[in-house]
Amino acid sequence: MAKNPAPDASRRSEKSRRAIYEAALALVGDVGYPKTTVEGIAARAGVGKQTIYRWWPSKAAVLLEAFLDLSLQAAQEAGQAPYVIPDTGDLAADLKAVLRITVDQMADPRFAVPARALAAEGLVNEPLGREFVTKLLEPQLQLYVDRLRAAQAAGAVRADADPRVALELFVSPLAQRWLQHTGPITYAYTDTLVDYALYGLAPR
Amino acid sequence: MAKNPAPDASRRSEKSRRAIYEAALALVGDVGYPKTTVEGIAARAGVGKQTIYRWWPSKAAVLLEAFLDLSLQAAQEAGQAPYVIPDTGDLAADLKAVLRITVDQMADPRFAVPARALAAEGLVNEPLGREFVTKLLEPQLQLYVDRLRAAQAAGAVRADADPRVALELFVSPLAQRWLQHTGPITYAYTDTLVDYALYGLAPR
Repeated sequence: MAKNPAPDASRRSEKSRRAIYEAALALVGDVGYPKTTVEGIAARAGVGKQTIYRWWPSKAAVLLEAFLDLSLQAAQEAGQAPYVIPDTGDLAADLKAVLRITVDQMADPRFAVPARALAAEGLVNEPLGREFVTKLLEPQLQLYVDRLRAAQAAGAVRADADPRVALELFVSPLAQRWLQHTGPITYAYTDTLVDYALYGLAPR
Repeated sequence: MAKNPAPDASRRSEKSRRAIYEAALALVGDVGYPKTTVEGIAARAGVGKQTIYRWWPSKAAVLLEAFLDLSLQAAQEAGQAPYVIPDTGDLAADLKAVLRITVDQMADPRFAVPARALAAEGLVNEPLGREFVTKLLEPQLQLYVDRLRAAQAAGAVRADADPRVALELFVSPLAQRWLQHTGPITYAYTDTLVDYALYGLAPR
């Protein structure tokens, strides 16, 4: 310990951190979660496995951070502030804009291949699935909760609607089409979901 | 061939057919799809593997029929005609009734454990996933399309709504909660989904 003090988090080199994220995502996409190992990630990133263990306790922890970083990048590339859904005052337009970014991300193999591998493992490995839902998916869903609450305050959404359930009307169909290949994924599709969710299927 | 003619489908013993279905579902739930083999199914069912190969070309084919049979049983146990959604004239009530049966099925390990194992495989094995969607899931979704079309004819659903997209507003949220453990699954939840989907989130 005295001879080899663990480097402070601030000393993590941005370059090797990013190399480790990319290696972790590429490896889980290639071989699936069960065969992904810290050793394999280290070899692919060109670092020693002790470098990884100094910063993260497990492969799940590396992957969690790698996905968080990827989501951040996607938001930045789309010119959006991360962790917020725009509020232009037009709820339908704002939801459509955010879902279009999600559609783009789902079509991007850098995101889609590792995300699918991880989702598949989460279906049969319940602790892992719950950890990723709690730390990765649920915080993103809370952004919709916040936007829907603001819409309730503005009178654009019924005051008695539960935002956490309401968001599922447009988020879950897209998720299921992407996960299970149950239909094409287009901007027209996500626009339609938003319209149906806001105005309902019954005649007005 | 002349010495060992393949038995006609009508000669399949109901008892061994059901034993094979149950063995296939139990095995895929226990060990996952990749490690499920026709030999393993045969051993668990107490039949020779040639018995299985005489009736089905592959493990995927056995599993497909086993799930179809299980869905049929679930409908019968719920006192419903299979392959139809009731039409009492009250669309919301009819959809809620059918979704409550699905909620029950998702809580039943006989269905849930093998279905989850198969869904997980379908995420990363695209040909298998597409086969099961086409042959198992999509025919069930078409029942909702038929019911929504009847509702359109009766004026209970907007004529310009696409039934194949509309059904996803209440089916996909339930599917995602079940697959990814993103929230509790209750009758109150599915009832709420139906109400939101039919009447929308925006004030009327």
